[in-house]
Amino acid sequence: MNSAVLRLRPLGIDTHREFVIYMRRDCHVCRAEGFQAQTRVQVTLGKRRIIATLNVIDSDILALDEASLSASGWPALGAAPGDEVDVSHAPTVDSLSSMRAKVYGHRLDAPALKAIIGDVAAGRYSDIHIAAFLSACAGGRMDLQETIDLTRAMVDVGDRIDWGRSPIADKHCVGGLPGNRTTPIVVAIAVAAGLTMPKTSSRAITSPAGTADVMETLTRVDLDLPQMRKVVEREGGCFVWGGSLSLSPADDILIRVERPLDIDSDAQLVASVLSKKIAAGATHALIDIPVGPTAKVRSDEDAARLQTLLEQVASAHGILLRVVRTHGTQPVGRGIGPALEAHDVLAVLRGAASAPVDLRMRSLALAGELLEFCGHSLPGTGHSEAWRLLDSGAAWDKFQAICEAQGGLRTPGVAALRSPIVAERSGYVAGIDSRRLARVAKLAGAPDAATAGLELHVGLGDPVERGQPLFTLHAQAPGELTYAKEYLGTHPIITLGDEVAR
Amino acid sequence: MNSAVLRLRPLGIDTHREFVIYMRRDCHVCRAEGFQAQTRVQVTLGKRRIIATLNVIDSDILALDEASLSASGWPALGAAPGDEVDVSHAPTVDSLSSMRAKVYGHRLDAPALKAIIGDVAAGRYSDIHIAAFLSACAGGRMDLQETIDLTRAMVDVGDRIDWGRSPIADKHCVGGLPGNRTTPIVVAIAVAAGLTMPKTSSRAITSPAGTADVMETLTRVDLDLPQMRKVVEREGGCFVWGGSLSLSPADDILIRVERPLDIDSDAQLVASVLSKKIAAGATHALIDIPVGPTAKVRSDEDAARLQTLLEQVASAHGILLRVVRTHGTQPVGRGIGPALEAHDVLAVLRGAASAPVDLRMRSLALAGELLEFCGHSLPGTGHSEAWRLLDSGAAWDKFQAICEAQGGLRTPGVAALRSPIVAERSGYVAGIDSRRLARVAKLAGAPDAATAGLELHVGLGDPVERGQPLFTLHAQAPGELTYAKEYLGTHPIITLGDEVAR
Repeated sequence: MNSAVLRLRPLGIDTHREFVIYMRRDCHVCRAEGFQAQTRVQVTLGKRRIIATLNVIDSDILALDEASLSASGWPALGAAPGDEVDVSHAPTVDSLSSMRAKVYGHRLDAPALKAIIGDVAAGRYSDIHIAAFLSACAGGRMDLQETIDLTRAMVDVGDRIDWGRSPIADKHCVGGLPGNRTTPIVVAIAVAAGLTMPKTSSRAITSPAGTADVMETLTRVDLDLPQMRKVVEREGGCFVWGGSLSLSPADDILIRVERPLDIDSDAQLVASVLSKKIAAGATHALIDIPVGPTAKVRSDEDAARLQTLLEQVASAHGILLRVVRTHGTQPVGRGIGPALEAHDVLAVLRGAASAPVDLRMRSLALAGELLEFCGHSLPGTGHSEAWRLLDSGAAWDKFQAICEAQGGLRTPGVAALRSPIVAERSGYVAGIDSRRLARVAKLAGAPDAATAGLELHVGLGDPVERGQPLFTLHAQAPGELTYAKEYLGTHPIITLGDEVAR
Repeated sequence: MNSAVLRLRPLGIDTHREFVIYMRRDCHVCRAEGFQAQTRVQVTLGKRRIIATLNVIDSDILALDEASLSASGWPALGAAPGDEVDVSHAPTVDSLSSMRAKVYGHRLDAPALKAIIGDVAAGRYSDIHIAAFLSACAGGRMDLQETIDLTRAMVDVGDRIDWGRSPIADKHCVGGLPGNRTTPIVVAIAVAAGLTMPKTSSRAITSPAGTADVMETLTRVDLDLPQMRKVVEREGGCFVWGGSLSLSPADDILIRVERPLDIDSDAQLVASVLSKKIAAGATHALIDIPVGPTAKVRSDEDAARLQTLLEQVASAHGILLRVVRTHGTQPVGRGIGPALEAHDVLAVLRGAASAPVDLRMRSLALAGELLEFCGHSLPGTGHSEAWRLLDSGAAWDKFQAICEAQGGLRTPGVAALRSPIVAERSGYVAGIDSRRLARVAKLAGAPDAATAGLELHVGLGDPVERGQPLFTLHAQAPGELTYAKEYLGTHPIITLGDEVAR
């Protein structure tokens, strides 16, 4: 198989993050190797190799001795046009038999999970294989030891930062509540208090914005490890997108498939959250679990189960963890979408009169809890200390200093298209469906269009008049605006009642 | 969204069966609709529409007002180069919430399963969604009523043939035993006896050959319904590939994902088998379940569980079903792979001295059982009647007549490359690993290369001398031959012992 060499020619085909190789059906490699469309092949260039899915070409867009890669394949392989690659059958992926065992309901031991996560991180699993694995692990089908082992496997496959000191503070929200963007504010307060908080965040999985998406409208977030270290040594904290580091790299690949599936299981959630925290070197992790009928966690029983699992897995890995349950009955702040949420965060940090009170109060409560948890404040005094650091401007100064260290503070943009949605009758706001709200913001273009999303003008219990704007859609593309409106036509978000809702 | 029109230009990209649409990133549609790589879009041409995955183009292989489709998209849409298609966001697929409920371990009712199967058949599920659904249904997570409802949903989404008479005989092997190609022989005997047996078969799912793959090396199998009816009216039986009919069409789509996953759950297996039988109008279905340590069904308990499920679901749908359990300790016949198995079938039908005895005996046993089950033979006399029909040449005559009616009997080819694998020591054949055997045949190119596979020269308990050929690899492509040999180097198939194996 030493003659399986083809020259790379760019075709400019973007398949998102899946690696695809394009080869002529009648080229010598396809004929000699018996390759067909969808064959999984190994592509080697020097010391780098990727596993790609084959798409077969029956036209002249490639010559017989040429191949092409999808956009994500070029950087992964470090390839340039004209490079010669070696193409062979992908090696047998032995861990797939463990994946199948899980599908059939068997439990997996630590070596099996290590092998699966190793193969996922190396790109040896196709999206179909990953989807089957995620599905097999959902619905309570991973026991405690499996979740501990999965977490360890996810940590071990990537880098792990050692900060050489303690405490290292971290904070995470399990999500499900649109607009609940407390992280930038909590970090600013905690670091202003003198804590070390090297915060890595993810982009949105199933929501209209992740913390990394929001922070990217304010500063550069794709720092590498040395750059991140420099910022933290100088300022005590940072806001970095975890995906640009090699912390729990399998997690990013799993998330790519979770997103279209819209599946997020307890075990996967715990392993995802804690593997990132452990790899980032955290010693103290504060976890915010919003509970509400349309949040990700819907009942106190579910929250208790998740809390127990988080505590047990954290304990097995030797990190301290504290859970704070918060109300999840309605969105937080006004904006939903990266830039819109960034505007809310700035308003709170600056102490603007227009700052959303709910976002401010939640951030202060979490920051106070964190100050006590990490031993900075005595029990009972963390909340007032957080209040002082925010209102004195110390947190805002620290936030600006961190952003400057990361490359400068930017002003988030505003969407080109805005369309208010008005009340069709008078009454009181009786309910806000967070899931539909998130969906509408995504249909409007968030998070890929950073300025897209929606801006809420009312909260639960507010009286409204017929014709009064309930919220405003923000979009960059007319098609997306139309699509969000069409969805709203059949899926109302805000329920109006005649009585004041509790 | 009425201006979202693009002109189709062929690029000749074959993605197997997944629909992909290619559009320029900077075209007016992507910009207006906010489309990104991997967006699911609806493509409409006249009254036909498909859901396709978007791949974004950043080069000149398409003009700004052009789009292209992957190879399978053109016939699905009935499109020709230059046609103008309308492109819009894919509608929300509501049944995905039921798919997710199943992943989370909830049971599904009949309307939910009907909606899922309807959306699968309409191409609204991506491969990732299908993989999650299949995985969620495996491992005993579908109860009896769900399996009955799934089967009905799969029947209802396609056509259903009414032959206007009874009995209509059918026969199926749940597979897992390489070379167990009894179906063509059983059909020939049963139809020679006067039974009506309109046999539809599938292509390989996870095996090196399906009955349709084998029969395609002997005659045309892609008949449409009127052509199939004509053959059956004239000859009493047929050998047709089910995929060219619209019988249980969702099954073919599910199988496309099951194949790379290599997952085959009880519920999915029963729904797949019985939906095809019910849709094909069968009244009497004989099911062969081979049981053995490396077959698909490994124990009598598993076989009993599968048998009960098959009987209960068949009964709920009003068709008669009889299960025959057969030995599954080693492969059947000599050839593994479409053409190699066809040679075995022809040898048995012709009464050649070289015909594999095990294939002949199994076929006679199953045919005898079917003759009794359908009321053609009295209990205890079916076997001798089958024997008579085979040895008299009546079955061979009928086989030829059916093939002639389908377009003519062909001679199966022979592979270009053959490589014998010899014994490294003397001894007795103590074990044959059917799973590895199937894998080697697939690595050698089966079933896509019809003549590829392997030919066994020994059976369990046979004495062998050092240097004696154990089996011969057959391949069309040198790369595939090498790859099969590499696998054999680390995964031996035939175990030699010093004692005679039982």
